[in-house]
Amino acid sequence: MTNVATETMTMTERTRVRRLAERGHYETATIHAILDEALICHVGFVIDDRPVVIPTIHWREGNMLYFHGSAASRMLRSLRDGVDACVTVTLLDGLVLARSAFHHSMNYRSVVVFGKAQPVPEEDKVRVLESLVEHVVRGRSKEIREPNLKELRQTLVLALPIDEASAKIRTGGPVDDEEDYALPVWAGVLPLTLTPGAAIADRDVTAEVPEYVKTYAR
Amino acid sequence: MTNVATETMTMTERTRVRRLAERGHYETATIHAILDEALICHVGFVIDDRPVVIPTIHWREGNMLYFHGSAASRMLRSLRDGVDACVTVTLLDGLVLARSAFHHSMNYRSVVVFGKAQPVPEEDKVRVLESLVEHVVRGRSKEIREPNLKELRQTLVLALPIDEASAKIRTGGPVDDEEDYALPVWAGVLPLTLTPGAAIADRDVTAEVPEYVKTYAR
Repeated sequence: MTNVATETMTMTERTRVRRLAERGHYETATIHAILDEALICHVGFVIDDRPVVIPTIHWREGNMLYFHGSAASRMLRSLRDGVDACVTVTLLDGLVLARSAFHHSMNYRSVVVFGKAQPVPEEDKVRVLESLVEHVVRGRSKEIREPNLKELRQTLVLALPIDEASAKIRTGGPVDDEEDYALPVWAGVLPLTLTPGAAIADRDVTAEVPEYVKTYAR
Repeated sequence: MTNVATETMTMTERTRVRRLAERGHYETATIHAILDEALICHVGFVIDDRPVVIPTIHWREGNMLYFHGSAASRMLRSLRDGVDACVTVTLLDGLVLARSAFHHSMNYRSVVVFGKAQPVPEEDKVRVLESLVEHVVRGRSKEIREPNLKELRQTLVLALPIDEASAKIRTGGPVDDEEDYALPVWAGVLPLTLTPGAAIADRDVTAEVPEYVKTYAR
């Protein structure tokens, strides 16, 4: 029997976590969960032998990571042409305050995906873009106006298979040198979370704030 | 008289914001403020003609952007060798919920810095690493144990001049097509902020939680 929770990525030279290897994770479920929680990613690609890193929205369906944007975007045009991409997602979970400067750290969960993206066929765009809205705000896609033909034509959607990927995770408190535990300094973790504030209605809105906005959480 | 607030970066082919050019900002003060608020950046570099993007901590002093880590880190060793880097910082400020799927967006402030990093000389490391602690948690550097010689030797600190950089910023509510304003759907902005939770003390801590932890904010 196949158990999705224990599926793991095949480690490659690029995805093997080298520094602090004990923080490396290769289970598909772990990688997917981090990609799904994050609202933005950073896409790296090479132009004229030099790196470019651009923040953008990503979303996932199954084993595919999606990106979208204007068909005029340099990033999307570069990626569409099949160049190598590195997509990195990082969730910052807290500050780790140690007794020594050296052992200060951060708690985080990150994923790196390597690969080449391909354009999503026209006939799949409506469905895939609906899953983008649901990724960002679950429950919203049914309420809003769908993309029309002109908007679909202006939008490039790319898919990157999540085949070569790994996660890196740090959790827990500081790990100080044994002799430093006697120092009279406070040490511990300050958790950090991306928290919604009060929703700000646009002009001419008569509808109530929806439940999915009021109770928004990642 | 020189007015720092109005200093601007010289725009280059790489830093000119192309997509939605009205979101591009080139004032030094704007770029510095975004770099200073952010706790992590994404560093892009090229290995074997392919892009790699790694999240790490950055900090700034004057016109220099700093990174640090183990002297054994592949990223730091690559950057130390003077390869081209692209460092991107993104602050996510909110979800922009429009009446149409197409006009959904996010509010954000991002900075992209291009350049080549150089190692910080040994004699400057203590001072520069102290400014790292102060960047992350102002007020903490005086309380903790300073790095010893062994720790300094293990730590590589790199400096990247902030000479070729630009910011991209979106603020405000959704901008829908005129005919969509009549739709009965809620629209507006859901602000998002990185918020500290309650501090979690490590084992064997007798000191009170410091004020700078209790009132932590970026």
